[in-house]
Amino acid sequence: MSNATDEKLKVESVGERQIRAERVFNAPREKVYEAMTDPELIPKWWGRRQDTTTVSEMNVEVGGRWHFVCESTDGKHEFSGVFRELEPPERVVQTFEWDGMPGYISVDVAELEDLGDGRTRVISTSTFHFAEERDGMLSSGMETGMGETYDRLAELLAQS
Amino acid sequence: MSNATDEKLKVESVGERQIRAERVFNAPREKVYEAMTDPELIPKWWGRRQDTTTVSEMNVEVGGRWHFVCESTDGKHEFSGVFRELEPPERVVQTFEWDGMPGYISVDVAELEDLGDGRTRVISTSTFHFAEERDGMLSSGMETGMGETYDRLAELLAQS
Repeated sequence: MSNATDEKLKVESVGERQIRAERVFNAPREKVYEAMTDPELIPKWWGRRQDTTTVSEMNVEVGGRWHFVCESTDGKHEFSGVFRELEPPERVVQTFEWDGMPGYISVDVAELEDLGDGRTRVISTSTFHFAEERDGMLSSGMETGMGETYDRLAELLAQS
Repeated sequence: MSNATDEKLKVESVGERQIRAERVFNAPREKVYEAMTDPELIPKWWGRRQDTTTVSEMNVEVGGRWHFVCESTDGKHEFSGVFRELEPPERVVQTFEWDGMPGYISVDVAELEDLGDGRTRVISTSTFHFAEERDGMLSSGMETGMGETYDRLAELLAQS
C-alpha cells in the first residue's frame, strides 16, 4: 500500500474558483485532525520553515475565530478565519484571510480520509468568490508555502 | 423620465450564487455615495425601521473595516465587513457578514448610475461562495429588511 508519490503535496485548480490540494500523511486520522485543531500544536508546523508562528486566537468551535501571526526575516504576516464546520476526525471547514489582502476570503474545506493502513489522505479545497482571487492565490507562491507547511506537519506527526 | 416603479426595491437571484438588487433614488449620485460612506449618516438610514444602528468602526479606505450594531426590541444584531474598492461617486465593493452566521461572507458590489436627471440608480450585487448561502440569505427576510433600509435612505436624501 505504500505510495511514495502521495507524500508530496499535489495542487491543482478546479473549475473557475477553486484550488484542490492533496497529500497523504503517514499517521492515523485522529492525530492529523488533532494537529490541525490544537492551538498548542499549530506553532510546531503552521507556516513556512522560516516562520515563527504565534496563535493569538483560536476558538475551536463552530463560529469561533482563529488568528495566527507568522514572523520571519521577511516581515510579519497575519492570517485569520472562522471555523464553519468541525467534524472530528474527518472534516474542518474554515474561512481564510491574509492581512495583506483584507476582504479577500476563501472557504477552505479539509477532508481527512482514513486509508486503512495507518495513513491519512488530506484533501483541501479552497473556494474563492471570484476567479481572479483564485488565480491570484495560485500565483502568490501559495503552493511552495503550503508544501513547506505540510512537510512540517508530516515531520511533527512522525515524531509523536 | 420619471419612473415611479423604479422607486421600489427590486430583488432577483442571478445565476447560482448571486443576488441583484436595484432601486432608483431621487438624488444626485454624489449625495447617494456620501450617505453610503459617511459614518455620521449611516445611523440615519442603515437597518430596519425598528433598529437603532450604531457605527462602532468604519474606516472608509481600501482594506478598512466597518462594524455596525443594530438594536431593537427583537435583540441585537452585529454586521461587519471590509471595504475592497471605493471609487467615488460610482462604486463601492465591500464584504458583508452577520454575527449570527460567522464565516458566511458575501462580496457586495454597489454601482451608482447617474440617470442624468438628478436621480441615481443603485445596483447592488451580492456574491456568495456557495449557492446554499445565497438561497439562505434570500429566505432570511433580507428583501424586506433591505427594502426598509433603502426606503429610509430615500427619506434621508429627500430631507437634505
